[in-house]
Amino acid sequence: MTISSSPNQTAPRPVFIVSDGTAITAETLAQAVLTQFPNLNYEQRRIPFIDSVEKATATADRINQVQERTGMRPLVFSTFSRKTISEAFCEECTGYVTELFRSFVNPLEEELGMESTHQVGETHRIRNEENYDRRIAAIDYTLTHDDGQTDYGLEEAEVILVGVSRSGKTPTSLYLAMQFGIKTANYPLIPEDFERGTLPEALQSVKDKLFGLTIAPERLHDIRNERRPNSRYASLENCRAEIAACEAMMNRNGISYLSSTTKSIEEIAATIIATLHLEKHERIG
Amino acid sequence: MTISSSPNQTAPRPVFIVSDGTAITAETLAQAVLTQFPNLNYEQRRIPFIDSVEKATATADRINQVQERTGMRPLVFSTFSRKTISEAFCEECTGYVTELFRSFVNPLEEELGMESTHQVGETHRIRNEENYDRRIAAIDYTLTHDDGQTDYGLEEAEVILVGVSRSGKTPTSLYLAMQFGIKTANYPLIPEDFERGTLPEALQSVKDKLFGLTIAPERLHDIRNERRPNSRYASLENCRAEIAACEAMMNRNGISYLSSTTKSIEEIAATIIATLHLEKHERIG
Repeated sequence: MTISSSPNQTAPRPVFIVSDGTAITAETLAQAVLTQFPNLNYEQRRIPFIDSVEKATATADRINQVQERTGMRPLVFSTFSRKTISEAFCEECTGYVTELFRSFVNPLEEELGMESTHQVGETHRIRNEENYDRRIAAIDYTLTHDDGQTDYGLEEAEVILVGVSRSGKTPTSLYLAMQFGIKTANYPLIPEDFERGTLPEALQSVKDKLFGLTIAPERLHDIRNERRPNSRYASLENCRAEIAACEAMMNRNGISYLSSTTKSIEEIAATIIATLHLEKHERIG
Repeated sequence: MTISSSPNQTAPRPVFIVSDGTAITAETLAQAVLTQFPNLNYEQRRIPFIDSVEKATATADRINQVQERTGMRPLVFSTFSRKTISEAFCEECTGYVTELFRSFVNPLEEELGMESTHQVGETHRIRNEENYDRRIAAIDYTLTHDDGQTDYGLEEAEVILVGVSRSGKTPTSLYLAMQFGIKTANYPLIPEDFERGTLPEALQSVKDKLFGLTIAPERLHDIRNERRPNSRYASLENCRAEIAACEAMMNRNGISYLSSTTKSIEEIAATIIATLHLEKHERIG
């Protein structure tokens, strides 16, 4: 619960994430806003499913008590889709409330000349069964085609990630499948491939779908050492050699790649989508 | 790219998601707001990494051209962390712009008596290496403990999902690991368990971590039929029997469960976190 970006400061500012749904949108909003204040020391608490006026009033009271106890005005990020709940909460709460729907949905009603539904929890509900099925199919595909397990059906992939072992292929593949419904395979490039000097046979016919991940040798060394301490596989020398050979192979084959060392999975995924022109995939959830 | 909620209406309203970072926050914002207008027919386009004044002006021009061509004012959802870029974009763009940072970050500066950084792309950057490592460790754990593959290390799990085959355990497990860094195992309950009438031996000592998933028999039948058409495994009769037995077993053992039939993975995950009191886990990314 504690996220102390500046542990030496005074007591952390209380932050509450409140919603009548999952609170996922509210938390995304809070994180986007709060990361703009890296010196803010805060303590965050998530309160989802506040779906009645009674719960809203009780939650506001609870937040007010924190203010009384700590002497600090809590920051509240909320997404209440239902007006009555939102009003009851905002009226009662003495914190600094940033309410997404009040700020954006109500003005948009005018622009569109259309009433909004004020329905609860629509955002992270399945838009339709088709969307859900696509997501599950993508996850199934990605699990089956993780780590070069099978070449069968590789042509069905929309993205095939390549790179040395432990360069971040699996998490990125799963993220693309989970969040965008993109069928993503991943295929390791191994010392054998570097010695031979050519891409694995199975990748030759799907070169337009390849995207590479690389990583700083020091970081790879740390990650591999966790798994197989003091092995040749994990040695810094071997990590350096594998990465150099892998980058050379990707360069020779015209494969776009980026380094996972300082990038989050989200940034890597967004870059892959832009590079391979997969923008047609709407973000799911 | 097309998300036609009402295909019979006139031409779809153009929607643009623009950001100097990944555009993930902007897309989440757009989805949260637009799902409140289920009758709006729109066509959405994501434009990430607009990280210079030149790119911002060019993007605004491109959006303006869409307005001229279609005669419809585009809706724009943006998260520009840098003020100069945001201003250049907003000045040039004739669309209806909803800008997250301008709306929320600037007022918060006053409340906090603190300047924001206006740094690009901080939201979905890794907050620190520790956070990233925790995420990767959770994904590794979850993949290793998928589908009851091993009982070894089961006590390390923070959540163990149980349910019949294809009830949604794997996607939910991966989501909890990916988005919250929660080590999640999943364990199938199978006809053998129902005949014996007791939970699998390995789950006896970790009952406080169990959470169940159930599903409507008709839906399970459809899902299983995709995999193994016309099998006994997929038959509606068998699906009904397995689910009834599974729910009875979960009831007998006091295991909380919910139905994945009409819930999104996000909703299921948020409910599990609330039920098992795992709110300490901050959402990652």
